[in-house]
Formats: sequence, C-alpha cells, structure tokens
Amino acid sequence: MSPRFTIVGNYISPYVRKVLVCMDLKGLAYDIDPITPFIGDDRFTALSPLRRIPILIEGDTVLNDSSVICQYLEDRFPAPALYPADILQRAKARWLEEYCDTHLASVLVWKLFYQKAIRRHIFREETDEEVVQRAREVEIPAALDYLEAQLPEEGFAFGELSIADISIASYFRTASFVRYAADADRWPRLAALIERTQSLPAFQRLAHWEDLVLRLPITEQRAALQAAGAPLTPWTMGTDTPRKGVARIE
Amino acid sequence: MSPRFTIVGNYISPYVRKVLVCMDLKGLAYDIDPITPFIGDDRFTALSPLRRIPILIEGDTVLNDSSVICQYLEDRFPAPALYPADILQRAKARWLEEYCDTHLASVLVWKLFYQKAIRRHIFREETDEEVVQRAREVEIPAALDYLEAQLPEEGFAFGELSIADISIASYFRTASFVRYAADADRWPRLAALIERTQSLPAFQRLAHWEDLVLRLPITEQRAALQAAGAPLTPWTMGTDTPRKGVARIE
Repeated sequence: MSPRFTIVGNYISPYVRKVLVCMDLKGLAYDIDPITPFIGDDRFTALSPLRRIPILIEGDTVLNDSSVICQYLEDRFPAPALYPADILQRAKARWLEEYCDTHLASVLVWKLFYQKAIRRHIFREETDEEVVQRAREVEIPAALDYLEAQLPEEGFAFGELSIADISIASYFRTASFVRYAADADRWPRLAALIERTQSLPAFQRLAHWEDLVLRLPITEQRAALQAAGAPLTPWTMGTDTPRKGVARIE
Repeated sequence: MSPRFTIVGNYISPYVRKVLVCMDLKGLAYDIDPITPFIGDDRFTALSPLRRIPILIEGDTVLNDSSVICQYLEDRFPAPALYPADILQRAKARWLEEYCDTHLASVLVWKLFYQKAIRRHIFREETDEEVVQRAREVEIPAALDYLEAQLPEEGFAFGELSIADISIASYFRTASFVRYAADADRWPRLAALIERTQSLPAFQRLAHWEDLVLRLPITEQRAALQAAGAPLTPWTMGTDTPRKGVARIE
C-alpha cells in the first residue's frame, strides 16, 4: 500500500505549494488541512513550534519546513529526481531554493502579498503603502536582477526541472494573487522560466483549488473545497480566531 | 592534490563555525578571510547578495548559505558522515539545523549577542535592554524547552555526531561570548549535548582563534590572527566602514 500523507497548510501559501508540487510530480497522494498559520489552534502550535506551514504528517511522523520536507520526499522517493544529479549543481539549486524561501519570500510575500491581502482581509488593518512602494520600486527589482543573472538563456535553471524552478514559480504564483508579475522585457529569462514552470500540470491542478479559495473568507474556504471535491482531512487544526506571531513576520 | 577552499567569514559567527567544524571533521584545508558582514565591501556584496557569511570559494565556484555549504561538503566528501544515514532521521537533523539557523539564531544571536556585543562595539549604539530582557526571560527559555524535548537522554541527537549537534553547539558558543549558557538543571540533555560537542577537537581548535579575536576591535583582528599563524587569505573583502543592512537583521 502506498503511504498516505497529510499536509497541514493553505493552497495560497508558496511554502505549501512547493511541497504539493513535489508530491504531485512524485505521484504521492495526500489529504490536506487547508489552514493558514494565522488561524492554527494549539494543536497546530504543538506540531509546528514556529507556527509555520506546511507540516507533513504520516502516522506518528511529523516534519516541518518546506525545504526539509521536499528533501525528505526526494530521499525517500528518488524518481523523478527534483534535485540535480551533479553535486555542485545540486548545491546551487538548494541555494536558489534558500534565496526564494528567505529573501524572495520577504519581498514578494511579506512586503507585498501580506500587506495587500492578509493584513487587509484577515487582520482588518490598512496596507502600509510605504512598505509596498519600497518593495515594488527597489527591493523586488533588485531580487529579480539577481535571479535573472543566475538563469540560463532558456529552459529550466539546471537543465531538467528542479526544486529551484519549483521554488521560483511558487513564490511568483502567490505574488500573482495581488497582480504582480515579473516584467518579461526587463527579466526575460526569469519570466519565461516562471511561465514554463507554472504551465506544468502539477501547478495547474493546484491552480484550480487556489482560484476557488482566493476570494473567499478563510472561514468559508473549507466548506467550498469540500463541496468541490478537494482531498480534505476529516479534521482541522484551524479553529482559532486570527492571531499574529507567525515566525516569518516577527 | 586535495582541493583548497577559501572561506569568507569571521570566527565569531555561528554560521561560519558550522562550516569550519564540518571542514575540520572531514579533513579539508581552507584559507579564511575573517571579515564580519558589517564591514564587507562591494566585492563581498557581489559574491554574497544577502551580505551573509560564510561564503565558500574554490576557483570559480562560489557557494552561499551555511546549510547549503555543509550539505555540499557532505555530498562531495561523504566520510565521515555528518548527516544521519536513516532518511527520516536525516530529515529531522535538517529540521533541527533549520530551527537553529532561524529561530535559535534569532533569540540567541540577534536578540542577545547582537544587542550586547555587535550593536555596542561596532555601531556604538546602546543595547536595547527591553529586547534582551524579553529574549532572556521568555523567548530563549521557550526555544530551549523545545530543543530539550527533541533530544535523547544521552549522547548526540541522532546517535552519531551530526549536523544537528554541530548547529546547536555553534549557536551556544556564540551565546557564551556574552556569558549565556543553557542551565543544566532546567535543560540537562541540551546542556550535556552542548558540552560534549564543544569538547570535540574540531570545536577546540576554533576556540583558540575565537578567544584571540573576541576582545579585539574588528580592525585589529586580521593582524592578530596573522601574527598567531591563522590560515589567512592574502586578500580581504572587509575594507568598508561598518554598515547595517545584513539580511538576517533587516
């Protein structure tokens, strides 16, 4: 019998998306508890000490951190390979993943998406337009300049599809929810790589659920996903009133 | 001929220490440019886009991020193994490393060591005692409670020495520079693991250089290390006046 995994984490999160894309590509089935970290209850804190998503659960096994989970899935289910076979290329792919998880996330997700969407719709606070403006005009372009310089003229970052492409495309997908896209005139390699990666069936299948929940209040998302046949867990850890304090945005 | 690596990064940094300990354990020689990120010049920015240390350089190869570098060294020089052989244990070791690199670093290094040492001695600013007090009374104890619960009654975290032990011991070594130690009565497993790991020759050999530079102004460290016979690069990227903006403390 193939293993059955549970993923705790919302379809809107780029960290969750990285893991779900890897699982799809490796043919691994899962149930999902589509919570955001902001509404995770005390059971969520117990399983994710930094109150981050995703969490991977399989029986008594609990793993945190999208990069740790993706590498674990690669080690356990090596085909198809999502990390380059060459040792140096593999290190460079892991670095691009780390760059995305920390810095690209900081500028695209926390300074843009969080400000424009989460802060407004979940915490009922005003967007800090100064933060958004600085991100749009200075920080995001600098990050995209760096990424563009790391990419080949065409194709994926390291020949075959890898965790580097999946990471980049995941963060830009979340940025697209607040209508941000990499300008193909200024960053042609990056824009082409994003389009190529987001066109993969593994991304497209998730886009279906993302589009479904995107405009719904958090409290209505679960019922809508259930009605549409998403692979939901029978339980949920997302029963709290929204609270701040997620490690990423301390 | 065995490869010759260059490491850019100061002996005081826990991120640098992780890499240097792994290199020592694997018998890899290196030269070091012992700069802090705060005084890195434009060549430093070009090689480390987030202005973080360490950087590993070998000919045209440049790698960033301590976790990426340690995993690269493991892939290329597998003996002695510093990551558990068991796939699930390996994932858990990587998670503990990530927990240290982000959260333990946040509370021990950025809220304690940075406030008490860097801020005062490099930037000539007052320590924010409120940040330090909250770290000491609330945040550090909570992080140590979590770590204690992950550790076995005795020995290293996963039987043999691994990247998890090296990471934990590295951060506590930097915390010791501002006289912080895990209380062995409250966190006996953690305190014993730190002592066991820091007693290894690979840590002890670094302690020699750490003690040498610890009380010296940054501008005098290089000459003192040179006079004492440390494995210095003939060049340095640390020629700038101190500036902020390191990604970790944004």
